Amino acid sequence: MSERMTVQANGLDRELELRARVAISKVVEPLDRVLAPVVLEHGPVEAWDRIRSNAGGRFDRCEARVADLDVDRVLGVVDRLGIRVLIPGDEEWPAGLDDLAYPPVCLWVRGSEHLAACTARSVAVVGARSATPYGVQVAQELGHGLATRGFTVVSGGAFGIDVAAHRGAMAADRPTVAAMAGGVDRPYPVAHATLLSEMIEHGAVISESPPGASPQRQRFLARNRLIAAMTPGTVVVEAGLRSGSLNTVGHAETLSRVVAAVPGSVYSPTSAGCHALLRDGRAVLVTDAAECAEVLGQLGEDLAPLQRGRTTARDALPEVPQRVFDALTVTRSTSVDRLTRSAGLSASEVLRGLGHLQLCGLAERRDTGWRRIGP
Amino acid sequence: MSERMTVQANGLDRELELRARVAISKVVEPLDRVLAPVVLEHGPVEAWDRIRSNAGGRFDRCEARVADLDVDRVLGVVDRLGIRVLIPGDEEWPAGLDDLAYPPVCLWVRGSEHLAACTARSVAVVGARSATPYGVQVAQELGHGLATRGFTVVSGGAFGIDVAAHRGAMAADRPTVAAMAGGVDRPYPVAHATLLSEMIEHGAVISESPPGASPQRQRFLARNRLIAAMTPGTVVVEAGLRSGSLNTVGHAETLSRVVAAVPGSVYSPTSAGCHALLRDGRAVLVTDAAECAEVLGQLGEDLAPLQRGRTTARDALPEVPQRVFDALTVTRSTSVDRLTRSAGLSASEVLRGLGHLQLCGLAERRDTGWRRIGP
Repeated sequence: MSERMTVQANGLDRELELRARVAISKVVEPLDRVLAPVVLEHGPVEAWDRIRSNAGGRFDRCEARVADLDVDRVLGVVDRLGIRVLIPGDEEWPAGLDDLAYPPVCLWVRGSEHLAACTARSVAVVGARSATPYGVQVAQELGHGLATRGFTVVSGGAFGIDVAAHRGAMAADRPTVAAMAGGVDRPYPVAHATLLSEMIEHGAVISESPPGASPQRQRFLARNRLIAAMTPGTVVVEAGLRSGSLNTVGHAETLSRVVAAVPGSVYSPTSAGCHALLRDGRAVLVTDAAECAEVLGQLGEDLAPLQRGRTTARDALPEVPQRVFDALTVTRSTSVDRLTRSAGLSASEVLRGLGHLQLCGLAERRDTGWRRIGP
Repeated sequence: MSERMTVQANGLDRELELRARVAISKVVEPLDRVLAPVVLEHGPVEAWDRIRSNAGGRFDRCEARVADLDVDRVLGVVDRLGIRVLIPGDEEWPAGLDDLAYPPVCLWVRGSEHLAACTARSVAVVGARSATPYGVQVAQELGHGLATRGFTVVSGGAFGIDVAAHRGAMAADRPTVAAMAGGVDRPYPVAHATLLSEMIEHGAVISESPPGASPQRQRFLARNRLIAAMTPGTVVVEAGLRSGSLNTVGHAETLSRVVAAVPGSVYSPTSAGCHALLRDGRAVLVTDAAECAEVLGQLGEDLAPLQRGRTTARDALPEVPQRVFDALTVTRSTSVDRLTRSAGLSASEVLRGLGHLQLCGLAERRDTGWRRIGP
């Protein structure tokens, strides 16, 4: 077989597999407990054959949708809307998805960015829809700071933390990726239609569910695993004790991804989920983008600047000068004799200490004795 | 030797040792790098003999203070002020102090409480003097909640977190212990004179430094190790990156005590020290007294109530009813035929799911189809 024919044959294989995957995506729910294992076991082409023919009467639940299905019409919609359909093995397929027990059958993608390239160095920033102003500010700053550091911010496009993180990344003129629970042709929430359009221009909006699919609870839960799998790490900014973000964290843990959480007020219920993660040792505490980058980035490449307090000459004093300094005051002069008593040192030690302090500018000699300089 | 004579002899031994320790406490600074090892090596009586006689000219730094010393006068002051002098081996001596590399030579105590008894179940609550209103509130509530749970709150009597924790414990009518850097006859800060008097009546004020000693930096650092050693665990409520509380934490770690820290806003410099401890895995995150009690208390005895979000009937739904529920709306009725398509289920599965939802009160039948109940 010539090389050209191999490529053609591979192209034909891909086309066949793509059509099967598109069909399965249209009739089988993500993570369907009965059907997802069938796809995995038999591969998409064989699985679709069984589903379509309702082999052994095992696929009753697909019957109505199979009857409605027209793959060519779906591919027409996809073309018209500029949607790309990615399948495993495609160059643009994010490698992390293959770590999932049940990877998506395909990904529906709208956007300017190469999905595999832009998620290779990425971070999921997730959290409560009912975020506080505090959480929104943190998420925005994290989104901006991480984007500035070359991380693609991946989130769910939802109210609260999600949109704040996306906006932060966009403010840094960097691509950001939203993984949706419904179809990529259905902006959700509707209030974010404009934002999602901007993300399509400067990033990507993706979904495992086909165009037309409405965002439903099960699809949100399935979507969360994509966010966790596509990224090397997940940061939870704010989350209540029942937040869906904790579902994303569960997936990240299963996939051995890094999990980080932002602390907040102990009185804020929307930080209680973060605090529970930190308390149980399930997440690393982060307070800013630099710390996130350090935890999530390549080892040693993104070390956060060590946070230190300001140190003064006083902090560096050896024991003897320190004790002499402690025995001095700024308000009145003290004699060497008195200093030996109050510092508990010999006269020669006091004199040595005073010399040291004088050199550091921490003590000065007056006619009546020695005086401390500064606070 | 009769039993009575043994007691008498022991009493004489104690008197001798007490006088030596009082003398050493008056002339040797806590943790003096030269002299503390001498006391440890030779024992207090022999060490005092050497110090007093300036054996081998090694004790020049004590000379002035030795010349001034009058132990009888000191013991007179102690009697007049109602100060107790505790030495190792005394029943009231807190056992934890013996874990220190250099235990205090003696403890000067004013207060109504039996120090060993009340520190057996205790907790150090420490933090910034320049606390925020947030930190003050948390410290007060922790102090109160821990006291209510039978923990004696130990702190340093300082401004900010210390006094808030003491006040919280006192508001719960429980004893609280302040470890001072200066003498127990010198209320410090002066603004807390009344508070410290109350603590003497309902708790204890203690120091390693003798009456008359002024609070000095080295004495604060030495004092911090007493707070860490006397208690099974230390909670840091607020601490800047250079807070003295981190010094207390260092001692607690050296002594294998439990360390806990309270989170706060990432924008608060007075929480930065707590966050650094948590980030580095040096402290356990706690958000309230119940969690502190769990971390610090006897294993299994003080389990904090598990924090859970509210769960609803919806949360407990199996996959099939959940998918049917997702496909229903509250605003209009949906036919079974339509539900098979939107839920991706067979007609019999949809009917089974609807039955389940009806039983849970989550769906109802209308003339035109089925409708979701509730949000």
